Amino acid sequence: MKVGFVGLGIMGTPMARNLLKAGHQLVVYDVVPETVAGMVASGAARGESARDVAARSEVTITMVPDGPEVEAVILGPAGALEGAARGSTLVDMSSISPLVAQKVGAACEARGVHFLDAPVSGGEPKAIDGTLAIMVGGPAAAFERVKPILLKMGASAVLVGDIGSGNVAKLANQIVVALNIAAMSEALVLATKAGVDAEKVYQAIRGGLAGSTVLDAKAPMVLARNFKPGFRIELHIKDLANALSAAHAVGAPIPLTSQIMEIMQALKVEGREKEDHSSVVHFYEKLANVEVKKRS
Amino acid sequence: MKVGFVGLGIMGTPMARNLLKAGHQLVVYDVVPETVAGMVASGAARGESARDVAARSEVTITMVPDGPEVEAVILGPAGALEGAARGSTLVDMSSISPLVAQKVGAACEARGVHFLDAPVSGGEPKAIDGTLAIMVGGPAAAFERVKPILLKMGASAVLVGDIGSGNVAKLANQIVVALNIAAMSEALVLATKAGVDAEKVYQAIRGGLAGSTVLDAKAPMVLARNFKPGFRIELHIKDLANALSAAHAVGAPIPLTSQIMEIMQALKVEGREKEDHSSVVHFYEKLANVEVKKRS
Repeated sequence: MKVGFVGLGIMGTPMARNLLKAGHQLVVYDVVPETVAGMVASGAARGESARDVAARSEVTITMVPDGPEVEAVILGPAGALEGAARGSTLVDMSSISPLVAQKVGAACEARGVHFLDAPVSGGEPKAIDGTLAIMVGGPAAAFERVKPILLKMGASAVLVGDIGSGNVAKLANQIVVALNIAAMSEALVLATKAGVDAEKVYQAIRGGLAGSTVLDAKAPMVLARNFKPGFRIELHIKDLANALSAAHAVGAPIPLTSQIMEIMQALKVEGREKEDHSSVVHFYEKLANVEVKKRS
Repeated sequence: MKVGFVGLGIMGTPMARNLLKAGHQLVVYDVVPETVAGMVASGAARGESARDVAARSEVTITMVPDGPEVEAVILGPAGALEGAARGSTLVDMSSISPLVAQKVGAACEARGVHFLDAPVSGGEPKAIDGTLAIMVGGPAAAFERVKPILLKMGASAVLVGDIGSGNVAKLANQIVVALNIAAMSEALVLATKAGVDAEKVYQAIRGGLAGSTVLDAKAPMVLARNFKPGFRIELHIKDLANALSAAHAVGAPIPLTSQIMEIMQALKVEGREKEDHSSVVHFYEKLANVEVKKRS
């Protein structure tokens, strides 16, 4: 199947490479010519615009930073929807507001073009490995058609519901991850300030009801003072902004998410926005004037 | 070894029974005569007071509701410390403030009596099964002596640090569990209010970084509208009160824990204090005027 790919950033490039490796004919476009050249050197065809890519593809994937970029690249001038044939499919894999996904989806459907929102979880390492978790919203028939393509980029692709549902699941994921990091931080900073070895506390609680993937992934990073991303604070801020705006739009107040958003904003003020989101612990360490670290 | 047990409540009774089953000579005391009679019928000796139990035991375990009860039963008139011989050991397995544990421990050590704080995690089911997680603070030598006894009641017994450290670990555990429940609740209520099947969102996110023991234990309960404890809101409130007072005493502000404390207080006002702590979802459901449940 001829596949188009628009948006060759940190995530898009390895995802597109995995489609090439799987033998797909790929047409690509990005606003940065160098990233397109790199992909063309690997065997992809060069598209002149998102419109051109969509005109030459049965399925066009978009992977851009946020909602405004998705609107521009699909609905804007020279956008994918201008080029997409009736019956073709657009799959937006960016992490955006579900409300924007619904708006873009409605515009596509009005033109006879299928649309799926299919944001991913797992970050750059899993994009490279082709083991992303893909959360999909849209019509089941369109999902089944593109599922084999998605599974070249991801270990799983789950249809959650209607258009926008993929991004609702992604926001739910980001809420839980952010708050689980805050929970770990409050616990480990309190233990450290109370004079107790945070690593032993981590070991004592990880096997019980307090256990989590966040705790096992991030507590060792904090104890080793390693805040290399992983997943950057600035991206989590973007996702939490989308979560809060979606929550306010549908009428579901999320007060603790609002708090962790402010904590991440405080870290941005300190210049930590490029650090891993486990850097949230710094907020609490500053409050308590203490540092969580290995004793030995 | 002759073992004493003071405090035969919901947790203490099955813990003491596991010591009897393991063949220990047990002397027991509780303020409620009926619970003592039940244990005597099972083969335990009746103590007249905490003092009497400690006088007849090499190791005396206390398992009572909170710090004031621990102070009364160990330091008070006819308390365990009045009866304990020099070189004997008191093990308090209640969940209390680490500051109270340190105060009681210092009083014991001043009298030549060893003291360990050894709170447990796992609730009544794991108390019955003898598979509690036991977090211990105190001298290593005393810990090694009583470890075989602890492992009759628990699947694990971890020495975390000095006296009080067991309860610091327990509070860290309770902070993480409470906030992970809040995180799950914000995510699932937002998804539901956005018109998405919460069960599908749970399935879509549980395998990634958002995965946790809380999510797998509690999301199915919420979806099934089953709020039978488990672990009651009123007990979690007690633990969070101890966490906040310890945090304020040592100087480690925990603002999100303070928020989930207020949420649990709101549920108490609604008469939900006997429900499982997953009942936290009700707070968010009321805010959003929606109910998280299975669709089928």
